Amino acid sequence: MVKAKVLESRYAFADRWLRLRSDSVLLPGGRLPAPCTVFEYPDWVDVIALTGDRNVVLVDQYRHAVGQIRTEFPAGMVDEAEEPIVAIKRELLEETGYISQEWHLLGSAAVNPAWQTNRIHCFLALDAQKVAEQDLDEGEAIRTHELPLPELVEQVEAGSLELPALQLASLYLLQSYLRRSTDRRLASLLSLA
Amino acid sequence: MVKAKVLESRYAFADRWLRLRSDSVLLPGGRLPAPCTVFEYPDWVDVIALTGDRNVVLVDQYRHAVGQIRTEFPAGMVDEAEEPIVAIKRELLEETGYISQEWHLLGSAAVNPAWQTNRIHCFLALDAQKVAEQDLDEGEAIRTHELPLPELVEQVEAGSLELPALQLASLYLLQSYLRRSTDRRLASLLSLA
Repeated sequence: MVKAKVLESRYAFADRWLRLRSDSVLLPGGRLPAPCTVFEYPDWVDVIALTGDRNVVLVDQYRHAVGQIRTEFPAGMVDEAEEPIVAIKRELLEETGYISQEWHLLGSAAVNPAWQTNRIHCFLALDAQKVAEQDLDEGEAIRTHELPLPELVEQVEAGSLELPALQLASLYLLQSYLRRSTDRRLASLLSLA
Repeated sequence: MVKAKVLESRYAFADRWLRLRSDSVLLPGGRLPAPCTVFEYPDWVDVIALTGDRNVVLVDQYRHAVGQIRTEFPAGMVDEAEEPIVAIKRELLEETGYISQEWHLLGSAAVNPAWQTNRIHCFLALDAQKVAEQDLDEGEAIRTHELPLPELVEQVEAGSLELPALQLASLYLLQSYLRRSTDRRLASLLSLA
């Protein structure tokens, strides 16, 4: 850790999902010339959920920041005092109606330390199956569909499906996890990913 | 594109690097119950810069949002009316004093369409070499160092080096790009990545 002293701190914005803080910072080398803008987010979670047939469960939804319907892995925020694994199980069920008995944490990392306080936790779920209808927040409209894993990878590589850059990290973590796995079932997925 | 109508729009925050907008949105299916928070960022760029010895050029700097010195690929923002390739060449030179003659665009993607308007453009630079001293903004303190590519990958997989999740996307795009390359020199890098 760095011995940074916060000389002044104020919130410029706050809502249910994030708080935007502005800090004047003194480092051992001197005072930073501009205030540091910090986004206080809760941690995020996402999941590459595979059915028994090795289809990936995907969600399509309108993303206003880019004005498009986007295809993504199911994802969400970790509620206060909630474990990431609990959060992603909740999000998967709410957004898609799917559950899974076998979960693996592929990895966690700071999302973007240049701005954000939070981490993302990326999971793999196996034998995912639909057991319920979606349970969406008011105003949420999410279409769920499945795509064979090799087809997803092919479409991403060909550019016909653009995942968020942040979710390409999950694909990296998946490959890395499968490469290191000694579990035969997991290792057998590597050729598909 | 979706036929979304913005009923009301206001800026809650703005500085040199971003603007935070709050939109009330009417979709064909009805009005969204909560305003959409949108971060208007310029596009971002980053680079996996390899020296002739296949060392990766890395930067260490204090990241106040997480209160740590973090190791990252050189990265930055695209200035207005600037091409991404120009931006990343500028950032690499300013942050590290390195230049490269051979550049490849590994891929581009929306960073995080749930919130952000911007895209990230990820590059590979070959034969990078140090030709100048750093040219840092006031208050910037960046340490540059090199790490052999296989060692970087090993440290990332072992968890002893944590890249930002967003930069794991660059590693994914690198692998994907090298796998598809018919250039022998690039293909030969795949076993190291």
